[in-house]
Amino acid sequence: MKLQNDLFLRACKRLPVPRTPVWIMRQAGRYLPEYRAIRKHVDFLTLCKTPELAAQVTLQPVDILGVDAAIIFSDILVIPEAMGMRLEIEDKTGPRLHNPLRNEDDAKILKNIDPSKNLKFVLDTISLTKNELAGRVPLIGFSGSPWTLLTYMVEGKTSKNFSEVKKLLYTNPKLAHSILAKVAHAVSDYLSVQIEAGADAVQIFDTWGGILSPADFEEFSLRYIQQVIANIKRHDEPIVLFSKGVHYDLPTLAKSGANVLGMDWTMDIGEVRNEVGSSVALQGNLDPTLLYAAPEKIREAVMKILHSYGKGNGHIFNLGHGILPDVPVENAKAFVKFVKEASKAMHV
Amino acid sequence: MKLQNDLFLRACKRLPVPRTPVWIMRQAGRYLPEYRAIRKHVDFLTLCKTPELAAQVTLQPVDILGVDAAIIFSDILVIPEAMGMRLEIEDKTGPRLHNPLRNEDDAKILKNIDPSKNLKFVLDTISLTKNELAGRVPLIGFSGSPWTLLTYMVEGKTSKNFSEVKKLLYTNPKLAHSILAKVAHAVSDYLSVQIEAGADAVQIFDTWGGILSPADFEEFSLRYIQQVIANIKRHDEPIVLFSKGVHYDLPTLAKSGANVLGMDWTMDIGEVRNEVGSSVALQGNLDPTLLYAAPEKIREAVMKILHSYGKGNGHIFNLGHGILPDVPVENAKAFVKFVKEASKAMHV
Repeated sequence: MKLQNDLFLRACKRLPVPRTPVWIMRQAGRYLPEYRAIRKHVDFLTLCKTPELAAQVTLQPVDILGVDAAIIFSDILVIPEAMGMRLEIEDKTGPRLHNPLRNEDDAKILKNIDPSKNLKFVLDTISLTKNELAGRVPLIGFSGSPWTLLTYMVEGKTSKNFSEVKKLLYTNPKLAHSILAKVAHAVSDYLSVQIEAGADAVQIFDTWGGILSPADFEEFSLRYIQQVIANIKRHDEPIVLFSKGVHYDLPTLAKSGANVLGMDWTMDIGEVRNEVGSSVALQGNLDPTLLYAAPEKIREAVMKILHSYGKGNGHIFNLGHGILPDVPVENAKAFVKFVKEASKAMHV
Repeated sequence: MKLQNDLFLRACKRLPVPRTPVWIMRQAGRYLPEYRAIRKHVDFLTLCKTPELAAQVTLQPVDILGVDAAIIFSDILVIPEAMGMRLEIEDKTGPRLHNPLRNEDDAKILKNIDPSKNLKFVLDTISLTKNELAGRVPLIGFSGSPWTLLTYMVEGKTSKNFSEVKKLLYTNPKLAHSILAKVAHAVSDYLSVQIEAGADAVQIFDTWGGILSPADFEEFSLRYIQQVIANIKRHDEPIVLFSKGVHYDLPTLAKSGANVLGMDWTMDIGEVRNEVGSSVALQGNLDPTLLYAAPEKIREAVMKILHSYGKGNGHIFNLGHGILPDVPVENAKAFVKFVKEASKAMHV
């Protein structure tokens, strides 16, 4: 089915667009009353695993905010769960993996997975969502990066200092690499079948890349991201790589094979554009907490980023991290509207 | 009293030294059995406020690890407490300020303080420690930066997204600036009286500078750091500025008036040295979790940082953040020993 709005996909490939496309990380989430209404009756993981409901919340921000792309409603930890870890997700405490991997014995539970079977619910959600979208906007699939998944698999929960996973890297790098290789394989297959099921683009969330030193990032995160990208590059669908906090290695990231680099709000998008030249598109990068501000302040911040990037193609507007659960929905709407209006001047 | 070991002070001023000096952030802490023995009988805040005991734990790492500087045992939140906030510090949950500042009414409780009276216990600790050090190594005083103190004063506790303090910045910047100005005043006076009481250098901990966008960092953090530095610059004692995560503004930080910039482990110290030229000394920057590794791996990581910085003056070795409570004390000792031995080759 031909897309009626292909701005996001065109921007991924740095093709001319009449305005800058915009979507929001975690746009299907708790800040939306319509999402909370569904979550009253069903917990987070059940929602992920019920394609009819997952498709429904995936569509909500398209209808409510008018974003230029949908992103499948799911969680990055469905891969560790499929590989044999016991996953629990609570709203207050965040995700828990109840059998964290600390040594060779712990890691023996990891199974090789066939995502087309073990994660079929995601593929069904993609098919359903594509049908219901009927070509309105593209649909983005996603996965955590192998390194980011490893942090949860070893820590077992959200961490402050990442002590356990760093202990593993520094005392048993062999085991770390062996788990990362397995996870990279699963992530590659998972993103491939998402594309085959209809995802128009995929994003790799390397949320915890930035807690590593530059050398450790290359050894434990980037290497496996490159493997994943090499494995899925046979598809024509654009790949977005979001390595949060990785300010020190942008030229290398730009050569990773990803079409788009996601950026957090601590980077100046214009400077990054100068640094990585014309090889990749850039996605970002409003501080998510700016959506607490009054609309006029949000507009000002949007204008600043648009002007920092400058005229021309290859910019996808987004926040620099996921939208926060207590943001007023009116502010999210205003943000999308401002980007759509003000960005026209950047594409003349 | 003449210092027997002035390597740290010489390095701060980029003077020649026979080897690179080394100390560790949070070096008086829970990873030391001798510290835990004292904490069995006294809670954290009581320890801070009992000069005899605070001096005793300040000296422990000098005796046990052989570091080249002592840093006064205290907490950055004694300033908000002195200004009228109710402080509680628990080992497990971290610090709590029980009356967080969210609006003008909340902020009315803030008092102007005279640190020589309201924080006399810190000055007494400094005098006692100086006596007991008897010139062995220099003593560092410290304070949180105004911005970092504001984050705790508004959030009331350790935060994940810093939603409350960002809400304040974006919805009531006037109140934010008014609190920051008051805190900057208190910090300036506090650091001044620490120097007058005998501190040989001071460090400003801007632990949360890096959660701000570049423009917000300049408006809400750097501006007040510069005020503090201008206010204490009449003293000759070196000033160390540690703005964790502020990778985007190093040339500006180098012009702040600080003699030394602290660096976290996500930066390449050699690249930073090239970038900021010869105007400041650099302090850092081993990933604190590397102290979980075996000694050989620690030595390798130390060598890498020494070689990255290169030959010549102006390097103070440290971790890129505070030492973690579950680090084996033998590894901390090995770290200090390796720096002392291997760094001689960098100063010939």
